[in-house]
This record gives sequence, structure tokens and C-alpha cells, in this order.
Amino acid sequence: MLSVAVVGGSGYIGGELLRLLLCHPKVRVAAVTSDRLAGRRVDGVHPNLRGLTDLCFSPLDALEACDVAFVARPHTQTMELMPRLLEIGKQVIDLSGDFRLRDPAVYERYYGVPHADPGLIPTFAMGLPELNRERLTTADRVSVPGCMAVAAILALHPLTEAGLVTGDLTVDARTGSSGAGAAAGEVNLHAERSGVLRVFAPLHHRHEAEISQATGRDVRMTATGVEAVRGVQVLCRATLTGGAGERDVRRAYRERYRDEPFVRVVAHRRGPYRLPEHKILSGSNLCDVGFAVDEESRTVLAVAALDNLMKGGAGSAVQCLNVRLGWPERLGLEFPGLHPI
Amino acid sequence: MLSVAVVGGSGYIGGELLRLLLCHPKVRVAAVTSDRLAGRRVDGVHPNLRGLTDLCFSPLDALEACDVAFVARPHTQTMELMPRLLEIGKQVIDLSGDFRLRDPAVYERYYGVPHADPGLIPTFAMGLPELNRERLTTADRVSVPGCMAVAAILALHPLTEAGLVTGDLTVDARTGSSGAGAAAGEVNLHAERSGVLRVFAPLHHRHEAEISQATGRDVRMTATGVEAVRGVQVLCRATLTGGAGERDVRRAYRERYRDEPFVRVVAHRRGPYRLPEHKILSGSNLCDVGFAVDEESRTVLAVAALDNLMKGGAGSAVQCLNVRLGWPERLGLEFPGLHPI
Amino acid sequence: MLSVAVVGGSGYIGGELLRLLLCHPKVRVAAVTSDRLAGRRVDGVHPNLRGLTDLCFSPLDALEACDVAFVARPHTQTMELMPRLLEIGKQVIDLSGDFRLRDPAVYERYYGVPHADPGLIPTFAMGLPELNRERLTTADRVSVPGCMAVAAILALHPLTEAGLVTGDLTVDARTGSSGAGAAAGEVNLHAERSGVLRVFAPLHHRHEAEISQATGRDVRMTATGVEAVRGVQVLCRATLTGGAGERDVRRAYRERYRDEPFVRVVAHRRGPYRLPEHKILSGSNLCDVGFAVDEESRTVLAVAALDNLMKGGAGSAVQCLNVRLGWPERLGLEFPGLHPI
Amino acid sequence: MLSVAVVGGSGYIGGELLRLLLCHPKVRVAAVTSDRLAGRRVDGVHPNLRGLTDLCFSPLDALEACDVAFVARPHTQTMELMPRLLEIGKQVIDLSGDFRLRDPAVYERYYGVPHADPGLIPTFAMGLPELNRERLTTADRVSVPGCMAVAAILALHPLTEAGLVTGDLTVDARTGSSGAGAAAGEVNLHAERSGVLRVFAPLHHRHEAEISQATGRDVRMTATGVEAVRGVQVLCRATLTGGAGERDVRRAYRERYRDEPFVRVVAHRRGPYRLPEHKILSGSNLCDVGFAVDEESRTVLAVAALDNLMKGGAGSAVQCLNVRLGWPERLGLEFPGLHPI
Repeated sequence: MLSVAVVGGSGYIGGELLRLLLCHPKVRVAAVTSDRLAGRRVDGVHPNLRGLTDLCFSPLDALEACDVAFVARPHTQTMELMPRLLEIGKQVIDLSGDFRLRDPAVYERYYGVPHADPGLIPTFAMGLPELNRERLTTADRVSVPGCMAVAAILALHPLTEAGLVTGDLTVDARTGSSGAGAAAGEVNLHAERSGVLRVFAPLHHRHEAEISQATGRDVRMTATGVEAVRGVQVLCRATLTGGAGERDVRRAYRERYRDEPFVRVVAHRRGPYRLPEHKILSGSNLCDVGFAVDEESRTVLAVAALDNLMKGGAGSAVQCLNVRLGWPERLGLEFPGLHPI
Repeated sequence: MLSVAVVGGSGYIGGELLRLLLCHPKVRVAAVTSDRLAGRRVDGVHPNLRGLTDLCFSPLDALEACDVAFVARPHTQTMELMPRLLEIGKQVIDLSGDFRLRDPAVYERYYGVPHADPGLIPTFAMGLPELNRERLTTADRVSVPGCMAVAAILALHPLTEAGLVTGDLTVDARTGSSGAGAAAGEVNLHAERSGVLRVFAPLHHRHEAEISQATGRDVRMTATGVEAVRGVQVLCRATLTGGAGERDVRRAYRERYRDEPFVRVVAHRRGPYRLPEHKILSGSNLCDVGFAVDEESRTVLAVAALDNLMKGGAGSAVQCLNVRLGWPERLGLEFPGLHPI
Repeated sequence: MLSVAVVGGSGYIGGELLRLLLCHPKVRVAAVTSDRLAGRRVDGVHPNLRGLTDLCFSPLDALEACDVAFVARPHTQTMELMPRLLEIGKQVIDLSGDFRLRDPAVYERYYGVPHADPGLIPTFAMGLPELNRERLTTADRVSVPGCMAVAAILALHPLTEAGLVTGDLTVDARTGSSGAGAAAGEVNLHAERSGVLRVFAPLHHRHEAEISQATGRDVRMTATGVEAVRGVQVLCRATLTGGAGERDVRRAYRERYRDEPFVRVVAHRRGPYRLPEHKILSGSNLCDVGFAVDEESRTVLAVAALDNLMKGGAGSAVQCLNVRLGWPERLGLEFPGLHPI
Repeated sequence: MLSVAVVGGSGYIGGELLRLLLCHPKVRVAAVTSDRLAGRRVDGVHPNLRGLTDLCFSPLDALEACDVAFVARPHTQTMELMPRLLEIGKQVIDLSGDFRLRDPAVYERYYGVPHADPGLIPTFAMGLPELNRERLTTADRVSVPGCMAVAAILALHPLTEAGLVTGDLTVDARTGSSGAGAAAGEVNLHAERSGVLRVFAPLHHRHEAEISQATGRDVRMTATGVEAVRGVQVLCRATLTGGAGERDVRRAYRERYRDEPFVRVVAHRRGPYRLPEHKILSGSNLCDVGFAVDEESRTVLAVAALDNLMKGGAGSAVQCLNVRLGWPERLGLEFPGLHPI
């Protein structure tokens, strides 16, 4: 059994990592850290884990060497911590934003502080097997993209890669309340957050930098908080190039994702679920990707949906683990999602 | 114009008082206090008041004499403050729990601290016009009952008054998230609270003491937090006395509430809204009351629903003001509620 | 008292018209029609009207002459019926889509059938006082715009009127479930609709034709069904012209809407409600309008929110009535909305 | 591989059976019937099954012999059909209400029609392994209890079995909207059902007959429709016998369920999830059971929660299959549920 540690296990991403790793047939969870909750039972904070584990949180200082360290700590704190973590885990899979952006200047612009350890950045591989599976088979340092970035990148990549779109990209992202984390403030109380359409990032959001980096295009992103607890949906608007039409778009998606275990192309003529919908993806590692084309106005709308704690976080991290270890990529990630829910 | 002050205006009850008082044709809001937010605009915290007022919060110490002081401060703190408040307002209408229970020993059992000023308790009239309108026409000190207590008392009173039920009463109360207040903790974050059926008081809840006091019966109350933001619904189970039947029950409700402006008897044979439902009462001061009778098992289920911030709080307080001033009881409380919502 | 009739009173817009008209101080509801429900009590279908009226639905054929007929009938059926309705009501205020589009060819393209009575179209004034109050003071035939169109037109008009934006407009509209109506199909069952982000119109929606007509620009509209029951929010993206900057945009909104009773400019620097949010507008006739500007990318995002059954339908209709009769424009439309909800 | 058929696969229980059976390692789904949808793809109705199957619905008449037939057809229709189904499947697992009640007179009272085939009733075993696992190891005919009955029976059984409670039982059941099925009527539209607390069965519900049958007590059940899509929670109130106290109650639950794979005893001193909560059980086959005791009033409140489509239906059916075939009881039912959700 592979021994893994979850560094920062008190939050929602940490809890989701634990759910997946405790159920994973080839993994043993050696430790879960939380300085605030040190000594308390893990299932006291994550009630869905009752009966799965008797683990208690341990302080970060008590962490011992392990095969793989999954890191679910806040942005800007993780980069300070990383040198220590690299000594603890033979492999490190980071879910923070600190090693996603290759250009330290871009990092500083979007995170408001200079990067503490720019030299480490290029040693991390992007944790998105659909784009760089080959490198991930040998990568010992992985940085998982942001939840909205994963959705937008998977929605747009077949179009940009095939040269079917031109010019800037606009991304309208909608995200559920779990994205704000388990320590979110009063503005995320149920009474304030319930039923909202909260445009919290009207013109720019951090994740647009990741999308630009992956697509090579200028991206303008709007982000809205919606009623869901889990779930991200992105609507990406682009302009078709010269001769490109709906047939080319459809072919690009089909070919690009034919063999991907976690991407479904959803672009049906009718039905309430004819385009990607986060609602049926809760708990699954799937990213549904679809599109609509208006040849007259030369517009393509690329749509993607996922569970922000799964394919948008913990699920992608475990997928990267499977790729790195040469295990079946779907191992421990088989849950297909529910309908209705 | 009558000059009123809202003492403790940063919370949800305080905000609802402001909405009602700012729209009330015979009232002028002279001051709103919040030490924490002193100097900040009121509509920054209560966005629905934008365009209705330019008021800012003032510190409690700056409060000047006014005709009526509405008090929306936390339990156990209000009783300490009351002597000062009684000097500020010619009339005081209190929405805390501190002056609801006539017996200080019962107060201590349910609130966990001895009452700071037992001598004041009998000087307060219960702020429920449906039960003691006469006294409220002259009462200068009013204590508004708790939201779940209002619903249960109005549901049960026709039965106990007419001697139609015998023995103990069980009350199953369901309440929305606004009841936890604007400063509720992490367990009330949207991600934790959304869609819950949280049995937070399985066998006893404070409000049962108010129901016992008003009905003269032993009451066992269960309270569950539900998805709604606003709204309380209570299901009260009682045993019919000897000869009593459905006809007697129906007559008791019809006669008791025939002339009440804010109580509707809702007990239809069919339809999705055949019994009281909080959903259609948001923003209204109505309490819908209904019942179902099973003569075979000698059981009556009394059901009531209301908006916990309105008839369960701020609305009842304004209703008491109207009664005291001899104004039309519905003045400023005409909103009927929405369907669908 | 003015005698009014509601033609088609069984739906959600019809019910909202009834709520407003029954509470309106200068109006008497003479009749409510529904062939399907003829003879049944109105409050059986609209439970929030209990206690407000004993009216029953009457068949359309039984309708007698009245001062004003409000028409809330389905698209494509209303135009057939209009000649009869014009004989019944001295004034007619129509809430269907049949008289919104001035060009019959555009109507046919968006509604899929040729217009039955093109000659009548120019006799209807657009029921949006913010744009044509003057004409509405004398108009006996009014056509109220669609809910998403009202929001988008009010969001965009200050920009297009002041020449601050150039090129095509994209509108990302989000709408609640009541928009599908009281007779919506199985895809709108709670189990299917709850929590959705349903992109039901990915690239074109009927209402874009109304927005184009009002702004003189090409519009590409995406529509998504969201969790809310009531509420529309639109995000409109446009490109700033040459020298235009945030200051110009802010001035344009402030000046355009300074004296409007039902439009609030909401564009704050921070806070959860710093941009328009439908959540706090349920039951109110307000349309909140705001914006965000990114001078670097020359982009402006105009945002608007409203209650689709109120300012997006019944509320605007009553506002038009007030304008036509020379009554205070806010009469019967004073409800400010709730927070929290 | 065992060949199974799902008879009545278009509904929510049918869809959940398909999800479980398609992912089950020892089973092959041979056929899914729906006369209405014959010829259409299964994943067109159950979008979460996309990528899991290319099956199409077949008409009932085309059904061929199989090892096990799972029957998810409406009450009162299933009993007519059963003789044919018994020829098709070597084993039959029925999820309708038609073979749950041993006394045909009781069936007629609760279902409103005489039973069509009373002789068959005693040939069916109750599909609740926690109560009759032994019989289920050999039973070829199984009838799965109703969703609210499963919850209430598992909540009450340790108390009645150990003789800790006396007298009648009251059950307050809350249920999500999926219980009304995929063909529910207009009263279940999102706009009508969202956020409700709909007391649709104030004093009696069918499932109380199953609870009486399993516990040997008189049961009075109230049922309320709540906001959730999936999920049932029951609050069962009983009176403690003579010397019984909290310690006895705790011991009874611990001992009764110590070795049960799908029952967790949840009765903590504090925390938002200290009693059973459906919210964290979506998609899992767990039934969480807990209790609260008030020795002074001799009252015990037994609480249980489950996913009505899983442990309350399809999940219990697959659990019975595993028991019958001698497979590990958790096979294909490992999903633990999500937090947050």
C-alpha cells in the first residue's frame, strides 16, 4: 500500500481528498494535518467519513515521511511551506494556487504578493492529465489547476488546439458555495448566500490567468456565485475562424476526448440536460463538455460543468496519482453521479 | 409623526423593523443603534433599504429620548440594558427573550443564567394582540413572544381555550436559517446549512416554556432547522377530550379568529396549500392556522406557519404599536405574501 | 374606482396582477377569466390571495366591458384574441409577446408563426415608462416587454443613449423557474429543476429581438435557468468607445435614472450586494442596475436584476396604468423587497 | 455474470437501480422495460448514465427470462403483473407497495382497492436484511419496504425489540421531492415545491401500516414534503417503559447495529450533524439512526435518515440481491455520501 498524507485536512478539499483516499484500494492514509484541530477525530469535521476511519488530525510538525503528500492549504501560505513538504513526501500534489502560474509576475498581479520561491515553480507539472498525461507519468511535483480553470480549459482546448477560434475569449463562470471554503465569512451564511446570483468577480478572476496560460489567448472572466453547494459551470464565448462550422467543432470535441475516461461530450439537440449541467455531477470526477454554434454570427459557445471539489480539485489530484503510479486512471474515481439530485 | 428608535439594528430582526417603520405612514425613525457599525450607512447592511433611507447607525450611548424604542438585542444582554432603555423610550417594545417568561426560575432554567431584574418582568405585557389586545391598548412595556412560540400559541389556543384537548402537548417546530441571526457561526454557512433537516433541539426548546405559560399545559417541543431562510411551521399534536369531534374543532378556530386581521384559518380538503405553509407568507404579517382531526385515534394535529421575522418578530412588534396608538391594526402591515416564491 | 379585468388569471403573471390590483387603492377588479377554471375560486389557485377576495374565475365569453383589460395569455394565442379584447377594455395592457416586436418578419422568425394581425402592432406602445413615459400618458394600448428584455434594456440604455459603447452586445441572462409558467412540463418538476444551471437558450433567445429593437444594436443572448423561483439577472457585455471611461459610465447611469422611482443604480466597491441581485427584489417593482468597467480591455459589464413577475411583468403593467391615469407612479407598488430571503 | 432485468426503468427508482446494477461487478443488465419509452436510449432519461451504457428501453412484452427481475412499477398495477413476472425472473425483487402488507384487508384500507392476488402475498419476504437477513439468504421473492417505513423501522426496532418503549408510536416523516416520482403533477413543479414544508399526510400515511406490522405497535404518522430532492428523515416519539433510561437506549442501539454494514448509530453530544441528517447520505445506502432521551418526561425521540432512492428503495433491493447470492453485502454499494453537499 502507498502511504499518503493530507496536509491541511480540515477544509472541504481536504475532506474530499480523505473520502477518495480512504476508499482507494491501493492507498493507506498515514496522516492528516490540521494545527487548529490537532487531536480531534477527522469524522467530527467530515461526518460522511463516519465508519470509514478513526483517524485524528495531527499537527503539521508531527508529519513524518510518506510516499505522497497531498497539500490542501491556503494560497500564499503554501509556497512558504513547500520546501518542508518536499522533504516529507517523495511526491507532492498541491491543490493551492501557488504553483499554477509559470510567470511570477503574473502570480503577483493576481495574488497580490510576490512569489516566495519562484525557482520552484517550473519544477511543478500541471495536474491536468487531459492536457499533459505524458509528463504526469513521471512528475513528482504536481500543481492541480483551479476548479473554474479546469472547466474552462477543457471546454476551450479542442477549439484552440484545432485552430477553430480566433481572438479573445470570454468566460462566464458560475460556482457553488463550497468554493468559498469551510471557513468562509458571514457573507456566506445560508441566509445571505441562499438563492443568490452573486457577481463577485465582474470582469477579472484569478483563474483567467490559468486559462490564458493553457490556451495562449487573452481571457476575460466573470464569476458568479450561485445556489449550488458543489458545482462549477462555465460558458465560454469565442469567434469561429474563417471556414469553421458546427461540423468541425463537433469533430474536434469528439476526437479530442474520445478516449478520455473523465470527459463526456454533451451537446444534444434537445432535453433538459442537452448541455453540461453540474447538478448531475456531484461526487463524480467527470467534466461534461459541450458546445453550441451559430454560424451566422460566427459564434461558438463552449460549455463545461464539473464538481468543484472533485474534477475541480481532489478528484483531479487522485487522477494524477493514478497516472503517476501507472494504475488504472479511474481507480477510486468510479462514482458516476446521481439523477435526480 | 411618532418618533421611534431601533435599538440593535444590525441584525435581521432589526433590519425588518427598519423596513416596516421606514414605510409606516405615521412613524419617523429617529435613530438606529449598533456599536459595532456606528457611523456606517444602514442600507450597507440591509440592501433592501437602499433608496428608503440615508440613516447611519449610531452608538447606543448617543441615543436620545423618543416616543417608542424597539429593542432587538441578544437574550441575557437586554435585561441588563432595560433600565436605561426605559428612560429613553416612553414606550418600549422588546423582542428579546428576557421579559417573556413570568417566572424567573423558569427563565433561569431555559436561559442558563439568573434573571438580572426580576422586578421588571411583571411590568411587561405579552406582545400578542390575538391573546391580550385589551391590555396592549394601554401597555407601555411590551415583550414580543418567540417566533416558534407565536406560531404554536396561535395554533393551540382555540383548542385549549375551548377545552377540546386534554393532557400534554407535543410541538414539532421547523425553522428557517434567518432565525440563527446575522452573526451565526460556521455551522450556518450555506454549504453546511443548505437543504438540511437539522434536529438542533430534539426534546426541549426554550420556546416551549412560553407555550406552556400561554396554554397552561406541559409542552414538549422538538425543533428542526430547515432549508428556508424565512419561515416557521409548527405541528402540534394533542388528544381530543371526551365528546369533541372535527366539527367542534372547526367551529373553535372559525369563531376564535373570525375577526383577527392577521390570522387565517387554512384547513382545506385538498390542494398543495390545504394546510398552513410558510412559503407563501414571506414578508407578510399573517399567521396561517389549520388543523386535521382523526376522531378514531382521538388525535388533533394543529398546524401553523408564519414568517419568523414578521409575525414571529418585527411584524408583531409593529402590530402592537398600532394597537397601543389606536391606529388601524393593519397599518404598514398590508403585504399579503407572494405566490409562487 | 376604475374597473379592471384580468384576462387569463390562472397563471403566475395573472396571479401577480391580481395581487397588485386587489391591493391597489384606486382599482376594482371586475372579472378574472379562465376557461379551464371557470366557476372556481381565485384563491384556490393563488393561495396568497386568501382573505383578499371571494372572486371566482369566469369564462372569457362572459367578460363585460371594463375600463382596463390586463391580458396575460400565451404568445401566439393573444393576437387572435386581441380584436375582441379591444372591444371589451377601453384600455388594454398586454403581457404576451404578440405586440412587442414592430417588424412582423422579426416576430415570425422568433415565434415561428406569421403574425395574425400586423396592422394592430403599431397601435401598441411599449410598456416601459423609463423609456417612453411621455407616450404612455396617453396610450390606450400597451405591450409590456419580456422579463429578460426589461432587465437588459434598462441595463444597456444609458450606455447606448450616451454613445459610450460600440459594436455588438452580448447578454447572459439567468432566469428563475416561475418564468416557465404554472403549466410547465415535467422538465420543470422540482426534482429536475432544483439547483440547475440549465442553458436552455445557448445562443439566441426571443427577448434579444426586443433588446435589439430598443437599443438599435445586434444582440446575442444566452439564457440559463437557475434555482430561483422569481428573479432575472442579466450580464451585458459591451465595448467602450474611444475616450469613454468608468467616470463617464457612472455619470450616464446616475443621470439617466436619478428621477426614476423604480430603478436603483447599484455599483458599489465592495459587499455581497455590490452589484444587482434578484434575491432581494422578490415582490418589489424595482430594477437594480449596475456596472463594472475595465478600461484596459475597453470592456463594460452592465448588470441588472428584477423580479420577473413584477418589474418583468405584472408590476410594469400596473406602473403603466398609473402613468396613463396620472396617478402617483408608485401607487400600489411600494413594497421594497426583503432581506434576508 | 448474473443476468438481471429492470421492469419499469423510466422512473427515479428504476434509474437508481440501473446506476447500481450497471456498476455492480457481478451483474449484467439484460433488459430495461418501459412501454412508453420503448426504443429510446436509457441515458436519454437518466443523464447520469451517459457513458455507462448504450441500452435502450424495451416493451414489457419483449422481456425474456433472466436470473433476477427488479420491479419498479406503480402500486396497484404491480400485483396484476406479478404472475407474469414470476415466470420471467427466477428471482423477483419488487419495489412497489403491493406485497408489503401481509393482511389484504389492511392493504385495501391503505391503497383503496382490494388486493388482486392475496395468495401471493405470503410468498414474499420483507426486503430488509437488518430484520430478516436469514430468510433473505434463500428468498426468491422479495418485497422492499417503503422509504419512510425503512427509516422508521430501523429507528424504532432496537427500542421495541428490547422492550424499552410502551404504548403507541408517533412518526413525523419528512421526505424529498423525488419520492413523488418522475411523472409527478403540477403541484410538484419547482415553483410550487421549492422550499415547501407541505404537510401532505397530516394524520395517516400508508407507510404507517408497514411500521405497525414490523413493530407490532399502533403507529400514527405525519408526512411532510420538504425541499430536498433525495432524502427521508423520520422523528419517532415513544414513551420509555418503567426503569428504562438513556444508558439502556444507547446500549440497545449499539448492540443491535454493531455489525450492520449500512446502519450507523449517530447520537452525539454536539455538532451540526449530531443526529441523523439526510443531507450527507445522498447516493449512499446508509441509514443513520440516532436518539435523544428525556428521562424526566419518559420520552425517547428516535431519529433516522436515508436516501429514499437508495436505502429507501434501489439500494436496499441490491443489498437483498447480495444477501441472496451470498456476495459481500456491500458489493456495489460502497459509496459513503458527500460532505458538503
